[in-house]
Amino acid sequence: MPAFNPRFNPLVEKLSPPPVPSVAAWGRAYDGSRGPLIDLSQAVPGYPAHPDMLKLLGETASSTTFTGYGPIEGETELRRVYAEHVSEVYGASLGLENIHITSGCNQAFVCAAMTVAGPGSTVLMTEPFYFNHETTLAMLGIKTAFVPCAAENGFLPDLVGIEAAITPEVRALALVSPNNPTGAIYPPSLLEAIFKLCREKGIWLILDETYRDFMPAAGPAKGGMAPHTLFSLDGWQETLIDLYSFSKSFCIPGHRLGAITAGAAAVQQIAKIMDNLQICAPRAAQGAVAKALPILADWREENRQEIGRRANALKAVMRAANDWKLDAIGAYFAFVRHPFPGKGSAEVAEKLAREAGIICIPGAYFGESQQNYLRFAFANADVPTIALLEERLKNFSLS
Amino acid sequence: MPAFNPRFNPLVEKLSPPPVPSVAAWGRAYDGSRGPLIDLSQAVPGYPAHPDMLKLLGETASSTTFTGYGPIEGETELRRVYAEHVSEVYGASLGLENIHITSGCNQAFVCAAMTVAGPGSTVLMTEPFYFNHETTLAMLGIKTAFVPCAAENGFLPDLVGIEAAITPEVRALALVSPNNPTGAIYPPSLLEAIFKLCREKGIWLILDETYRDFMPAAGPAKGGMAPHTLFSLDGWQETLIDLYSFSKSFCIPGHRLGAITAGAAAVQQIAKIMDNLQICAPRAAQGAVAKALPILADWREENRQEIGRRANALKAVMRAANDWKLDAIGAYFAFVRHPFPGKGSAEVAEKLAREAGIICIPGAYFGESQQNYLRFAFANADVPTIALLEERLKNFSLS
Repeated sequence: MPAFNPRFNPLVEKLSPPPVPSVAAWGRAYDGSRGPLIDLSQAVPGYPAHPDMLKLLGETASSTTFTGYGPIEGETELRRVYAEHVSEVYGASLGLENIHITSGCNQAFVCAAMTVAGPGSTVLMTEPFYFNHETTLAMLGIKTAFVPCAAENGFLPDLVGIEAAITPEVRALALVSPNNPTGAIYPPSLLEAIFKLCREKGIWLILDETYRDFMPAAGPAKGGMAPHTLFSLDGWQETLIDLYSFSKSFCIPGHRLGAITAGAAAVQQIAKIMDNLQICAPRAAQGAVAKALPILADWREENRQEIGRRANALKAVMRAANDWKLDAIGAYFAFVRHPFPGKGSAEVAEKLAREAGIICIPGAYFGESQQNYLRFAFANADVPTIALLEERLKNFSLS
Repeated sequence: MPAFNPRFNPLVEKLSPPPVPSVAAWGRAYDGSRGPLIDLSQAVPGYPAHPDMLKLLGETASSTTFTGYGPIEGETELRRVYAEHVSEVYGASLGLENIHITSGCNQAFVCAAMTVAGPGSTVLMTEPFYFNHETTLAMLGIKTAFVPCAAENGFLPDLVGIEAAITPEVRALALVSPNNPTGAIYPPSLLEAIFKLCREKGIWLILDETYRDFMPAAGPAKGGMAPHTLFSLDGWQETLIDLYSFSKSFCIPGHRLGAITAGAAAVQQIAKIMDNLQICAPRAAQGAVAKALPILADWREENRQEIGRRANALKAVMRAANDWKLDAIGAYFAFVRHPFPGKGSAEVAEKLAREAGIICIPGAYFGESQQNYLRFAFANADVPTIALLEERLKNFSLS
């Protein structure tokens, strides 16, 4: 088989192989000498799904109610319950017609991107970026442009940088908050300013809030602030497409369930895309999550607090770990500066996996300029496991 | 909201709304005066999933084994079992590396198309075509060209027509056998000749065999013939991408599960696409079907025979139904010529739904030139229900 087969779609062939499996392979080469492997690579909650969630999934999956095709936009009951939920989270008024269920949040991004951008148009992203967003756009023939986010600014983009990057070809700005890979949480005031800039410029704002439920501060249901006010601003239906994942919050990524909140006209476009992509998201999990969403509110709040404890544990570790620097930490992820400037992040990450038994994602996977960084999905590991990092990082050397 | 919003992707905005829900809406306008509504629209088996299938689905869905992310290419056990199954069906030697699991067969088609064709290249289809194939290619910016299939030739394409249509821009020929919408079953000799033409011309053959398990004749496991010999021909790995759906055969479309059989190099490309589309297909259903595939072989054979009885019942009805003509019937579908030449197929289908309580898909949804036809998904209805069609069709008039 030749290395390059001219009969494959070049947009797909030139994509790198998926990063997560290659990182896992480094971990398999670890000999266990430093203790158990610590997996901080793919974002997977390090605690199991709630027993009630599993029970509901078993009930719906074994029922003939969900074996047939369902509505393209999603189960009516889940759309209704989720619309109520986001209305509460954002203090806004959202209905069934604003919700489209997808098979995970990656698919939500595919749908959002295709809704607003075709081959040859441009979607603006922040850098560092979530790699699957970048490869999704590349394989669709959608061009990308990047707004750099600097460590000294907490990896937040600035308005001047965004405005400068909005050329006439740009159809949308895609953001992730809480951010993947840096963990950075975009303040509501920044999101509002960015939204208003997008609205003024006539481009869409695609906002991926997969990690929304893991904010350090409690949400409105517990007396806290909303993640942002965008759903209450004029013209949000023509500007904002908001993405969410049930995978992390309910510990069920294997069931593949996500959601889009958007204007009714955008939802109608998304339904045409989803019909082609896979008719409808898997139904049994939709039926189960519709019931679990209200029931498991307190459990999700406990998990949010637990992930806060894990963040604190990582902060303590990093203060003690000599030349390793925690340049950003937020909901779920930390962006860690390794002490080997000039060395490639993949080289560091591979050796860290093979010799220290820590798997994480090299910074360069989120943008070539991120070679000095590693992404730690710290939420995967419990506090005692995170404490093990200190000795391993201190004793690690590249030579 | 304006009728046309210039800020949506024009490739998506110009797609018609998904056809199945609009047809279902016609059925809801039926007053019941002729008896129960007969749904011959979306292909959905008219019998429930096997109790063992439901039990397995309940077991896997309620287990933490399947809550995390799984391998992009699919559960190893399902890939292994399915590779054995297709090896038996085709009398060929296929392994794990030839299988990629998808979330339904529509998604398998998306992956296959993107693997070989990017925006601006052309995929050749037969006409009448399966509408979601056509809209999938359109939304991806892939051009389409068509090989017409005539009723007098049993809706099979001819080699001369295919060869004439293979221009330098054509990257693949997409076929459906047994065909959707006509039901036509492509003989192994025709498929072999088409394969060899594609191989010679250096284009891919994408073969959607969603309805493979409903052939009138038994397969190799019951002493019959293989659907085709393509997996035994030289160079199949560089020419053939074969698609299948677990939805119809196991009566679980709501669980969204399909499979691709292709060369290992193509499977690697598909994995990059799937990683972006949704990381992996839903896992619990994969675990359940891996167990159900061997266990439910006899049940699927019984269903095949039952659908044969339904086909015979429809043939008897159509012989008696005056000016209605059965121009094609095969596995699952019949392509029926209505007795109102000059009238649009949507007008006929809508009135048939509203007044006679029969929902089916207008021929024009499968190509503008198919106005004289309606697609009957006869396998949805049992024999007594099919018998009800005779009086309803005889008494139906357009005026």
